[in-house]
Amino acid sequence: MLARILKGSRTLSSASLFLRPHIHRPYTAAQLVTSASKMTNSNTVNIPCAERVAHFEQDVWSIFTPLAVECQAVNLGQGFMNFPPPDFVLEAAREALLRNDCNQYSHPKGRPRLRNALAKSYSPLFNRELDPEHEVVVTAGANEGIFSIFAGYLDKGSEVILMEPFFDQYIANITMNGGVPVYCPIRPQGDSTKEMSASQWKVDIKELESKITPRSKIIVLNTPHNPIGKVFSREELEEIGALATKHNLLIISDEVYDRLYFNPENHERIATLDGLWERTITVGSGGKTFGTTGWRIGWLVGPKKLLEPALGAHTRIVFCVNSPLQEAIAIGFEKAEEQKFFGSQVSAYEHKREKLLSVFRELGLPATVPDGSYFILVNTDKIQVPQDYVFPDLLYKRPRDFRTCYWLAKEIGVVAIPPSEFYSKENQNLAEKFARFAFCKTDETLDAAAERLLKLKAYIK
Amino acid sequence: MLARILKGSRTLSSASLFLRPHIHRPYTAAQLVTSASKMTNSNTVNIPCAERVAHFEQDVWSIFTPLAVECQAVNLGQGFMNFPPPDFVLEAAREALLRNDCNQYSHPKGRPRLRNALAKSYSPLFNRELDPEHEVVVTAGANEGIFSIFAGYLDKGSEVILMEPFFDQYIANITMNGGVPVYCPIRPQGDSTKEMSASQWKVDIKELESKITPRSKIIVLNTPHNPIGKVFSREELEEIGALATKHNLLIISDEVYDRLYFNPENHERIATLDGLWERTITVGSGGKTFGTTGWRIGWLVGPKKLLEPALGAHTRIVFCVNSPLQEAIAIGFEKAEEQKFFGSQVSAYEHKREKLLSVFRELGLPATVPDGSYFILVNTDKIQVPQDYVFPDLLYKRPRDFRTCYWLAKEIGVVAIPPSEFYSKENQNLAEKFARFAFCKTDETLDAAAERLLKLKAYIK
Repeated sequence: MLARILKGSRTLSSASLFLRPHIHRPYTAAQLVTSASKMTNSNTVNIPCAERVAHFEQDVWSIFTPLAVECQAVNLGQGFMNFPPPDFVLEAAREALLRNDCNQYSHPKGRPRLRNALAKSYSPLFNRELDPEHEVVVTAGANEGIFSIFAGYLDKGSEVILMEPFFDQYIANITMNGGVPVYCPIRPQGDSTKEMSASQWKVDIKELESKITPRSKIIVLNTPHNPIGKVFSREELEEIGALATKHNLLIISDEVYDRLYFNPENHERIATLDGLWERTITVGSGGKTFGTTGWRIGWLVGPKKLLEPALGAHTRIVFCVNSPLQEAIAIGFEKAEEQKFFGSQVSAYEHKREKLLSVFRELGLPATVPDGSYFILVNTDKIQVPQDYVFPDLLYKRPRDFRTCYWLAKEIGVVAIPPSEFYSKENQNLAEKFARFAFCKTDETLDAAAERLLKLKAYIK
Repeated sequence: MLARILKGSRTLSSASLFLRPHIHRPYTAAQLVTSASKMTNSNTVNIPCAERVAHFEQDVWSIFTPLAVECQAVNLGQGFMNFPPPDFVLEAAREALLRNDCNQYSHPKGRPRLRNALAKSYSPLFNRELDPEHEVVVTAGANEGIFSIFAGYLDKGSEVILMEPFFDQYIANITMNGGVPVYCPIRPQGDSTKEMSASQWKVDIKELESKITPRSKIIVLNTPHNPIGKVFSREELEEIGALATKHNLLIISDEVYDRLYFNPENHERIATLDGLWERTITVGSGGKTFGTTGWRIGWLVGPKKLLEPALGAHTRIVFCVNSPLQEAIAIGFEKAEEQKFFGSQVSAYEHKREKLLSVFRELGLPATVPDGSYFILVNTDKIQVPQDYVFPDLLYKRPRDFRTCYWLAKEIGVVAIPPSEFYSKENQNLAEKFARFAFCKTDETLDAAAERLLKLKAYIK
């Protein structure tokens, strides 16, 4: 049967897929349509776009999300939950809609109830009493929060130090505000042909420092890390913090997976380290915390003075964040403890991680075991994609992992994301042998994926 | 009693109000905290903010919204509804929350159901069949939509022609993206000491053209207009459109009040005029349309090629818009006709407009009768604020309408907004004799306001 599918795909023009990437399905969430070629107007009316958006390219989501639909593949690509948020959070949202103040404008900083709940929940985690009035800002998703920080701090030519792989939106968020991303890779130390721990991926602190120039203004940290699943150790955070202090950098600590880590003893927050609160803005996410990626509630935590430029930008960009879902997330935090929610959520994800890892173990494909987040990076080097397999032209211009993941979707029926999308052009080669699988899915979905992935045995050398 | 209140206010330090502007109340929605003085870090850690946010000032909302709370005044300031959205829209939101695809990421363009509903509802209004796939983009409120257009089109030094008074967020939305606002006033023609029609406020088309330079890229139109309530006539739109065509300008037509006008025969859309579809992006608002200002759902309508740069920017700024409330607004449009919603909403607002107008008529204060939106501009020249009344220092640095409105809130107990906030510095004098009153309030609120406003009789010359 595999042979038949394979044969079919050789004779069909797979490229036709790319001519209709905008299939109407609720989960074609991330199709972007703004390829560079579409960015100018060729009609009689010609109003050129701004330089800042002229070079946007078709991104990984606009290729692989429709592919999941096209191939009826099991989608372990984009990191959204295909199971519902907890009842107590949903019910809070439904109740909030019945109160008219929850249907009208909120304060640009965020609703007082949510800021209070965030301050109460995060104070013990930050080892300080957070001031809900000045040290918390609610944003339209973590994404808009991060954009607002860049808008509040970057001038033309300001440099931002990123560790790669990185969350792909960072790049446009920086360049749209005149900034320049500067990259330093996190590399797997040890034998990546064997299963390894996410903690074995390391950034070379000397290499990191070598990227800092007088124009450097911000360093972005992401822990727990997407896609590696790495939770930075206290020692690593201290080293990064020391660099930031030495070179007077603002630290953005993207901690959107901060309720999803599996070894409590090794999770630290850089803002709690000596002297670093004063230069750190920590970013959080209601979508990751409560399984509501479509509610678009995020937050920034940091000292008043650091938050003000971001709040100023945020207020002008969106004015305020949707009110009823803010109220629901507030109630989510208020009730999380009595519901023992965070602990049981971690257990559920741990179970899902093991379920997916067991497949790669059975296949003999070396995975990076994540200490946090809901992604697994897998070394796909052993998979022998038939050499005469014909790919859409577009994919020959992309790194090899795009072709591996395409073949995986078409012939095995499971969508994963090629992580070279999360690397700068110069370092994409570091990603070519990997694929990212999301496990924020129902057990049924993971079982269906497992069944299909086991067909890979025929292709493993 | 008035004398007592008045005396009280003279002896109290009214300035103390400004020391605690951040009172926790659901409807203190628009308090902004980003005054210029707060924008630098004076601690040991000094990370300067970006130039683009360095000059943000305390805005009118952060003064008058807390003032409403402080004085227990009737708040006719900010334009939010203090009555609930229609049941069929609320129920749709509550239902959507029970479907998991409505709790996860939506497509950056907007949920297909909402884009389809918008296309269906707007096609007859635009005299063309709108393509929901390419000619509609859902944004995180109209505000973020407008920001995204500026982000998609403005380069450093690009000029944007604004008619004043203008929606205050335009300015930062332009300057944050490197643009330069250029102003042309809309002036009352005729005797503004008598009640007049909003249609008597006119822009001088020659003056407007004189503002255009080779750096002009965009002209912003707002109809129905906030705060004048003017609905631009077909002839006016043709003149503005001809200018845009002659000078190859993109037109942003901010039509967020497009379901709230009182004379159906005189409402036109500039995008429907000959040759103007190709250069116009029209902006709409779920908050204004369905009384849900806190849901943050807006949309852009225009040709694919014009929308793409804005969509590209929008996708990077917020990725996507909250899903469940998008679904509810979609259902709102689907059911609006069978519910006869738009017609009955207009009737309700017409009734509220008359209720508030009758107060100003009784007082002999000349109002501008709005043809659309939910605001009334009132000429306050006849009100004699006691000459020895002591204002907070801050207000002496502001135009006279700030002091009139402050006195009105403190001594009469009704909050209105000083419209000089909606003018450039050079033209603020044009606004000094006006105050803006919102009538998107319950009849009970309007009655309470009326009772208090009638006390003005003692102060009218």
